[in-house]
Amino acid sequence: MRGLIALEEHLSTPRNDELWDAAGEAARNGRAYTAEVEARLLDAERRITAMDGAGIETAIVSLTSPGVQSVLDPRQAAELARDTNDTARRDFVDAHPGRLEFFAAVPLQDPRAAADELERAVRDLGAKGTLVNGYTNVGDENTARYLDEPANAPFWAKVAELDVPVYLHPREPLPGQRRLYEGYASLVGSAWGFGHETATHAVRLMLSGLFDTHPGLRIILGHLGEGLPFLLPRLEHRLYKQREGIGLGSARRRVSEYFEENFLVTTSGHFHTRSLDNAIAAIGADRVLFSVDYPYETMDEAVTWFTACPLSRSDHAKIGAGNARRLFDL
Amino acid sequence: MRGLIALEEHLSTPRNDELWDAAGEAARNGRAYTAEVEARLLDAERRITAMDGAGIETAIVSLTSPGVQSVLDPRQAAELARDTNDTARRDFVDAHPGRLEFFAAVPLQDPRAAADELERAVRDLGAKGTLVNGYTNVGDENTARYLDEPANAPFWAKVAELDVPVYLHPREPLPGQRRLYEGYASLVGSAWGFGHETATHAVRLMLSGLFDTHPGLRIILGHLGEGLPFLLPRLEHRLYKQREGIGLGSARRRVSEYFEENFLVTTSGHFHTRSLDNAIAAIGADRVLFSVDYPYETMDEAVTWFTACPLSRSDHAKIGAGNARRLFDL
Amino acid sequence: MRGLIALEEHLSTPRNDELWDAAGEAARNGRAYTAEVEARLLDAERRITAMDGAGIETAIVSLTSPGVQSVLDPRQAAELARDTNDTARRDFVDAHPGRLEFFAAVPLQDPRAAADELERAVRDLGAKGTLVNGYTNVGDENTARYLDEPANAPFWAKVAELDVPVYLHPREPLPGQRRLYEGYASLVGSAWGFGHETATHAVRLMLSGLFDTHPGLRIILGHLGEGLPFLLPRLEHRLYKQREGIGLGSARRRVSEYFEENFLVTTSGHFHTRSLDNAIAAIGADRVLFSVDYPYETMDEAVTWFTACPLSRSDHAKIGAGNARRLFDL
Amino acid sequence: MRGLIALEEHLSTPRNDELWDAAGEAARNGRAYTAEVEARLLDAERRITAMDGAGIETAIVSLTSPGVQSVLDPRQAAELARDTNDTARRDFVDAHPGRLEFFAAVPLQDPRAAADELERAVRDLGAKGTLVNGYTNVGDENTARYLDEPANAPFWAKVAELDVPVYLHPREPLPGQRRLYEGYASLVGSAWGFGHETATHAVRLMLSGLFDTHPGLRIILGHLGEGLPFLLPRLEHRLYKQREGIGLGSARRRVSEYFEENFLVTTSGHFHTRSLDNAIAAIGADRVLFSVDYPYETMDEAVTWFTACPLSRSDHAKIGAGNARRLFDL
Ligand SMILES: [Zn+2]
Ligand SMILES: [Zn+2]
Ligand SMILES: [Zn+2]
Ligand SMILES: [Zn+2]
Repeated sequence: MRGLIALEEHLSTPRNDELWDAAGEAARNGRAYTAEVEARLLDAERRITAMDGAGIETAIVSLTSPGVQSVLDPRQAAELARDTNDTARRDFVDAHPGRLEFFAAVPLQDPRAAADELERAVRDLGAKGTLVNGYTNVGDENTARYLDEPANAPFWAKVAELDVPVYLHPREPLPGQRRLYEGYASLVGSAWGFGHETATHAVRLMLSGLFDTHPGLRIILGHLGEGLPFLLPRLEHRLYKQREGIGLGSARRRVSEYFEENFLVTTSGHFHTRSLDNAIAAIGADRVLFSVDYPYETMDEAVTWFTACPLSRSDHAKIGAGNARRLFDL
Repeated sequence: MRGLIALEEHLSTPRNDELWDAAGEAARNGRAYTAEVEARLLDAERRITAMDGAGIETAIVSLTSPGVQSVLDPRQAAELARDTNDTARRDFVDAHPGRLEFFAAVPLQDPRAAADELERAVRDLGAKGTLVNGYTNVGDENTARYLDEPANAPFWAKVAELDVPVYLHPREPLPGQRRLYEGYASLVGSAWGFGHETATHAVRLMLSGLFDTHPGLRIILGHLGEGLPFLLPRLEHRLYKQREGIGLGSARRRVSEYFEENFLVTTSGHFHTRSLDNAIAAIGADRVLFSVDYPYETMDEAVTWFTACPLSRSDHAKIGAGNARRLFDL
Repeated sequence: MRGLIALEEHLSTPRNDELWDAAGEAARNGRAYTAEVEARLLDAERRITAMDGAGIETAIVSLTSPGVQSVLDPRQAAELARDTNDTARRDFVDAHPGRLEFFAAVPLQDPRAAADELERAVRDLGAKGTLVNGYTNVGDENTARYLDEPANAPFWAKVAELDVPVYLHPREPLPGQRRLYEGYASLVGSAWGFGHETATHAVRLMLSGLFDTHPGLRIILGHLGEGLPFLLPRLEHRLYKQREGIGLGSARRRVSEYFEENFLVTTSGHFHTRSLDNAIAAIGADRVLFSVDYPYETMDEAVTWFTACPLSRSDHAKIGAGNARRLFDL
Repeated sequence: MRGLIALEEHLSTPRNDELWDAAGEAARNGRAYTAEVEARLLDAERRITAMDGAGIETAIVSLTSPGVQSVLDPRQAAELARDTNDTARRDFVDAHPGRLEFFAAVPLQDPRAAADELERAVRDLGAKGTLVNGYTNVGDENTARYLDEPANAPFWAKVAELDVPVYLHPREPLPGQRRLYEGYASLVGSAWGFGHETATHAVRLMLSGLFDTHPGLRIILGHLGEGLPFLLPRLEHRLYKQREGIGLGSARRRVSEYFEENFLVTTSGHFHTRSLDNAIAAIGADRVLFSVDYPYETMDEAVTWFTACPLSRSDHAKIGAGNARRLFDL
């Protein structure tokens, strides 16, 4: 296929590399793999070459996880976000017009500052929305704030006002919350822990009532929806059984209604046909979008799989590019 | 349909009710719902009536979660297991021959004691295997031992010797490991937290090399495999990318090989056609078995859904009863 | 569900009943069934009552098979078409505004007359397109003209000019071409022969090059596409193997391209979930439309099945009404 | 994959080539293609080379269509059958033990002779069953006898006694019954007409009551069931509506019951994932078997497609070889 659009595609910046200690990740993922990923995160030219080879016309790039979300000092977080967005615009978008777009990084340590930076990125820099790497540390590395928590109200109001999508990207669980993975460090990140962390984060948003306040919000999940296509029906069924219990959140509708109306999912890093089938069946082919998760994944592998998927021409066209074109006005 | 067999069907006993403080669960699930469940857990007659009404010929009953796994005193755990198995045999199996069978409870606080009790239950009482409610507390309520941990070697050796299935049933995450659910108590248990806890437990078993040591082990998962049909391909794909990293466990084969050869899944509490489709596609119709999760679920609802599922006669027959008949020699 | 739209819904008229000898059909289908159908074909009030009961907001009605296509005298055919369209407008559409629309009948015995009548029906009477009951007899009951044959060029030019859909509806095979069904009269019509007759007719259109001449044509097939979602891939594969052979027609593209771009399919009379799955996979959910085939089928049965189908809300909405609303500007 | 078994694999013999005028087929399919096919039909060595290359361990070979079924002189038919079976045994099976097996040809012009030859082929030559190329000409090329017709009773009694499968293979429709394909000679054979001819033949068997008389019969259909997985539900539904009508045959059960209990289907010549999905959903993975349709199809293409199909290991193993091994005791 040609003319594909991909939207979970990551970059890093010199400043991000200074702030983030990748030692743990490098140990877990292997040093050679990590070194290659790190080099590619910074390199717009190799990215374009890979896109040309695979038939990807346009990629929407974003700061790799955990990015701004893990910076403990709010001022530093704001600076990193600003620097990231300026760099993304200058070294990626402007250097390859029509080929690269970007999602803004936002310093949710201070939701008002996040709102301001989002506004600047969208209005002044042309950001296509924002990508948030899960919970944001507030105070220390074991203190998290999820996006449904009330402090984030100004951020969501700005998202609604600007009417841009929010990509909810994974990050690793809190260091003190990894007992379940003990002995299997390989499970902490993208292989396994990422998915539950992010799927639960999405469920928190659904239960919080956020989508009753802002019915037009559009949240994008990677990895074919982080398991939600399969798991959500049981969640909804059990919540109904528990409807006289506590801790149900404030939402007025059923979780599947929000999932089908406020969410979109991408194929990033989950190149499996039956899971794609399940995702399409759950959310409809208008809400599934091709993505790679470069440079953690290779464009060739993603495109080869997607091209061979037994989809109708219409679904191939929608998922490959059409849905993204409509969503981001590309 | 008639002649169905169900195998994630729970009971309680007076002794278990004394030892387990159900207050948290009652708050979360609602008092009326919980009271009704608790009454049904003890009542073999109402169970048979419900089975008759729904067309379920045989149910394999087991002690409800967390059961023996949460008892902090190992001696008390052993006593509860023994009492449970005697009660299951006397008040359920013997009271309704041909209609009820049982899975043994085992005191994994002391794996040798668990092995002994399993042997007694299988050889003397006719247990059809054992059902384990997730990790076992050792020491205090925040200290867990998962089934892949080396201390459990004598237990697994006995399971292999007796050649009986192990049903790996959910329990709630450790109290100190629930930050992700904070603010949404409804998510801790069957609605959501159960699934990740149990799926990860299963993955730990796969990575540990247990199935290389005992290739004939058969592990049963409820809830259509706790998300694994959808999630496992990405896990395997990422573990391969991380193959030079650390914390990968000791297994010699790929996780999907163990899943397809050492696991079976039931429909308990997940009555959703597309998730069933995904489960069948992932593991084959010979390894999917009907179950209800009574009395948390109603038999009528489970059977009505299953009967209407767009399955071939052959798959209906296998999943409804044939696979269980073969597996348990019924 | 409420607000459904159905588009393979049949009527008859007094004049049609005079011209068509239903004796063979009555024998094959059973007299009581046929009598009930014939009464309902004429009765707009009972139809509305059935629609109200089932939740169908709007039905597009059309003259039942074979209708005008089987009239041997071209003048009589033209008169029947004209009378049918006037009756449809007066006794159905005008009597139930907003609830009933109609497809025009056209006298293809004379393609220019068919073009004229289509234009009159669309422009003056508000017809939503035309429904053609398969081949048209020319001369005698064993002489057929299919829609791909060159004589029909003026008809297709008018269809393209008016830009309205053509519903290609089944009729029985030619009397002299039924050896394969001999001994099993039940197979001649809707149960079996209809499907092959109509699927082949559609394939003829694809091979003829018609869609190269008029790329905007939209052909609607009932019965989930008359088997084409399943069968077309083999046809295309074999035609490629035979590409140096004869009798391949004049089309410039592959049959599946026409199927996916020039065809739509309805659920009429084929209420089976796996066949629907296959149809959606083949042609995309934007090209599948709910229909009943009333009064041969009952609205309740169709709606009950469709409502229970394991589809996303989005696909339910599209197939149930959205696609028809867009296609027919309802 | 390695170790595959394929069972719709054709051969010819010098005697068959003398009797069958392949001119029409050569024109329709292209001369170069046909010449290549004809050379390969005779050549056991090239077949083995192709099997080695593609990973096919064992092929069950059979006389190509129409074979014995089209011979007008019953004595000549009997001789051709006998010669074919002796040749298959000597030049194919004995020349490549363990790699090639065969289905007997039978002269159904005289059903008692067919029964005798089947018995000889099975008992003396080790035939794995018989493959019948559709209807048999009796008298002239426009006179057909289908397998459900009463004259064939002695043949079916012998099949039941020997307890061997019957592969019902396509042949082209009667010369006088091709009006529907007029103008498109490419549609007469494997691309299109084959399927309807054979699916209808299978339906005739179902309706005839044959499987009530001989409940153990096993009929194999190629090409993923010739459309029946998709079409049969509508057939059954309409036959029920027509149950007071005529021409319904003598069967005591519903057509889908026979399909699911007396039929098996192969993948021959229909290498399409969604159609395979539909076939598995309709009949269960225990009744779907890999096949190629060599030399009309290439082994590499079939195996490449099948290997890439998103099937569980279990279904891959069953369809690829296990079902055939069980069915033919290989
Ligand atoms: Zn990513
Ligand atoms: Zn349970
Ligand atoms: Zn109709
Ligand atoms: Zn063949």
